[in-house]
Amino acid sequence: MAPQSTLDQVISLAKRRGFVFQAGEIYGGSRSAWDYGPLGTELKENIKREWWQNFVRGREDMVGLDSSIILPKAVWEASGHVKTFTDPLVECTQCHKRHREDHLIEAFVAKKGRQPNDGMSEIACPDCGTKGQFTEPQLFSGLVKTYLGPVDSESGLHFMRPETAQGIFVNFSNVLNASRKKPPFGIGQIGKAFRNEITPGNFIFRTREFEQMEIEYFTAPEDAGEWFDRWVKDCWDWFIDLGINPENMRQFDVPEDERAHYSAGTIDFEYRFGFQGSEWGELMGVANRTDFDLTSHKEASGADLSFFDQASGERFVPYVIEPSFGLTRSMMAFLVDAYTEDEAPNSKGGVDKRTVLKLDPRLAPVKAAVLPLSRNEKLSPQARELASVLRKRWNIDFDDAGAIGRRYRRQDEIGTPFCITFDFDSLEDQAVTIRERDAMTQERVALDQVESYLAERLRGA
Amino acid sequence: MAPQSTLDQVISLAKRRGFVFQAGEIYGGSRSAWDYGPLGTELKENIKREWWQNFVRGREDMVGLDSSIILPKAVWEASGHVKTFTDPLVECTQCHKRHREDHLIEAFVAKKGRQPNDGMSEIACPDCGTKGQFTEPQLFSGLVKTYLGPVDSESGLHFMRPETAQGIFVNFSNVLNASRKKPPFGIGQIGKAFRNEITPGNFIFRTREFEQMEIEYFTAPEDAGEWFDRWVKDCWDWFIDLGINPENMRQFDVPEDERAHYSAGTIDFEYRFGFQGSEWGELMGVANRTDFDLTSHKEASGADLSFFDQASGERFVPYVIEPSFGLTRSMMAFLVDAYTEDEAPNSKGGVDKRTVLKLDPRLAPVKAAVLPLSRNEKLSPQARELASVLRKRWNIDFDDAGAIGRRYRRQDEIGTPFCITFDFDSLEDQAVTIRERDAMTQERVALDQVESYLAERLRGA
Repeated sequence: MAPQSTLDQVISLAKRRGFVFQAGEIYGGSRSAWDYGPLGTELKENIKREWWQNFVRGREDMVGLDSSIILPKAVWEASGHVKTFTDPLVECTQCHKRHREDHLIEAFVAKKGRQPNDGMSEIACPDCGTKGQFTEPQLFSGLVKTYLGPVDSESGLHFMRPETAQGIFVNFSNVLNASRKKPPFGIGQIGKAFRNEITPGNFIFRTREFEQMEIEYFTAPEDAGEWFDRWVKDCWDWFIDLGINPENMRQFDVPEDERAHYSAGTIDFEYRFGFQGSEWGELMGVANRTDFDLTSHKEASGADLSFFDQASGERFVPYVIEPSFGLTRSMMAFLVDAYTEDEAPNSKGGVDKRTVLKLDPRLAPVKAAVLPLSRNEKLSPQARELASVLRKRWNIDFDDAGAIGRRYRRQDEIGTPFCITFDFDSLEDQAVTIRERDAMTQERVALDQVESYLAERLRGA
Repeated sequence: MAPQSTLDQVISLAKRRGFVFQAGEIYGGSRSAWDYGPLGTELKENIKREWWQNFVRGREDMVGLDSSIILPKAVWEASGHVKTFTDPLVECTQCHKRHREDHLIEAFVAKKGRQPNDGMSEIACPDCGTKGQFTEPQLFSGLVKTYLGPVDSESGLHFMRPETAQGIFVNFSNVLNASRKKPPFGIGQIGKAFRNEITPGNFIFRTREFEQMEIEYFTAPEDAGEWFDRWVKDCWDWFIDLGINPENMRQFDVPEDERAHYSAGTIDFEYRFGFQGSEWGELMGVANRTDFDLTSHKEASGADLSFFDQASGERFVPYVIEPSFGLTRSMMAFLVDAYTEDEAPNSKGGVDKRTVLKLDPRLAPVKAAVLPLSRNEKLSPQARELASVLRKRWNIDFDDAGAIGRRYRRQDEIGTPFCITFDFDSLEDQAVTIRERDAMTQERVALDQVESYLAERLRGA
């Protein structure tokens, strides 16, 4: 299990090495969002690429889509979001701070081991401590709204999508016709979504601006159950194949009263992030959305969103199986799972503690680092030339500052699979020493073999 | 030159084949944004990947960033956008439609050959024709705003970025420290931006939601001029290398009074899109933003955004050279430039007109199509197996519906570089016929050589 301190160490490493920065930090920072630095951008991009190749481009029954973030109000009315995407908020009449009523009650139950006796009267405001002085709950929309056009009026009211899914549903017919697919087939999309979370927190886990990787898979109603099971398995396998320890991931069959309004069945994947309190957090979910969305949009828009099966002569509104991944949550899980502390030999014949991110090479933000043994007018230019050749194909670091051991540590802690040392012998034998991150084994490789050596071991990255 | 009709044909093809759909089409559509269908998503992704490899990952002096779309008001006040990112709008008191005052005056001057005598009194409303009945101009912000947090109040006021650049400037110190780079170096970013355009139009050319690919390149002030010239050349070369005909692109040295508030020099690249009226449109720009942005954020936030050069012992606020690409505009230019009509032999010994997108293979959304000569229980499974092997590496179509000539046409018009025909001889000789898109030449290739045959010709895609 990942102890609490691992999460703190990952967060500290992520900030220090430029995986993740606080958004607008020089202005005091925003709790709404995070910025992804050079390494975080590459890691996130690698996760996206693996996902897209595995679930979209690599499958005959899938196509991709990239729909807009802002959509008119009509779409969100039909989807049920305007009506049901709300949280009950109470306001403390002493300090005027607002809180989720259900969160306050949950916290009370967790602390006291029982339900409160008389509504909110026993519950204290987490901000000012006043007990039981709350307004009646008001429903507060989690949708982020904006106005487009030359006037700030109701006619320009738009919402930013709280999930990428609706952009897929409203394009169902367009994609069906243009791509000449037929059920069972799916549409995949990666993109940003926005929710006006009352309490963003836990690093990049709960933010108002975040990224999703979603699939809407359209099937005949009678096949929905079978596809649901297959997608649960495919999603599970994807995480395991990319290195997640199965002991840190579990499935949760969401009971009916906790499911989203559209779902006839949901399995959440939870990862052991190691949060304070509850250490598990939701990573992704697979939902059976039935024909809820296509039927709702069909009725609201008047467009025909059914499918006519020429083989059977039947017309039906497809059922939808939805695997919905949190991209930024996946990134956080890969980081926590890869974080390791072990020991490495030092130059004095002893061992030093080292931090290493054991990321799958396909995900590692830097694939190899080229390190001249010392900063030297003979070594550096040739080493730099090697880096520049490899850079045509991979993200490559070049580092000639400081002791070689320290430079290894810097690469280990960002998960670089290979360090390539260019030493004085290299000038003679035209070979370099390649060190592998996890086992720290070293091999002498001819300069003209370096590219193929890496290509074999980077598993197509 | 690209005649007007080419643009219309490209738009029609883009909609029909699933490159681009109107956002929210089943609800009457939105003028603000477009959705990218299966082929458009792949094409856009390929443009991004080429850009990122060429300008970010492939260069030692560049790193990447992915900052948030929504940023607090303070950032946009410091950047000058709250104050200056505005347009003067007047409202017709008869029909209550709003117009840009400067556009109305420009149109008058263009028509009459002189300035209006007395303010707006000579000018007629373009909607209802009433002359001179306008309100005083009001400044209208082009920023898209929203409210975050549990209350819709000024304290929750945030703006969606109108350019990705500001996310780079506010992270300047973070990136400098984490990546251990020093000027000259640059930060690249690809992402969405939002502007409340009064008159969106010209297909995906002017939209309220769009995508940019931006570089902020930080240099010593005295080197800014040299880097400006180098970036203009590098950007130009990138488009040409990816197939843009240089006769369809030109540079425009923007005069001082037309530049953005931060710029000491701007060169725009214009592409001959073939719009009605003026056929050229802005594709990208390279600007010398001087130290305007870093100095503004330094003063507003109190953070030290200068750089101390240990070699020279000098401290300076870097100058910024900004190559700013429109991603969706680039996609539109690549489509228009690739659109070709020529002739192909038909089965009757004559020729048919064909439409072909002569996209560079690196950009083509589908790299190859596997076509069994006819839908047949012997051919189809083996052909499908070949497609499935190739799909591990590339985006591959499989199509067994209709005459082979018609299937070639379908692939030609979406720019697929290679069609692989699996025929009855293939069952015997374990070879296939590969047809090249532009020359329509055909070669017999052994099944176990198909992957390397494609890899050689797809130029690393």
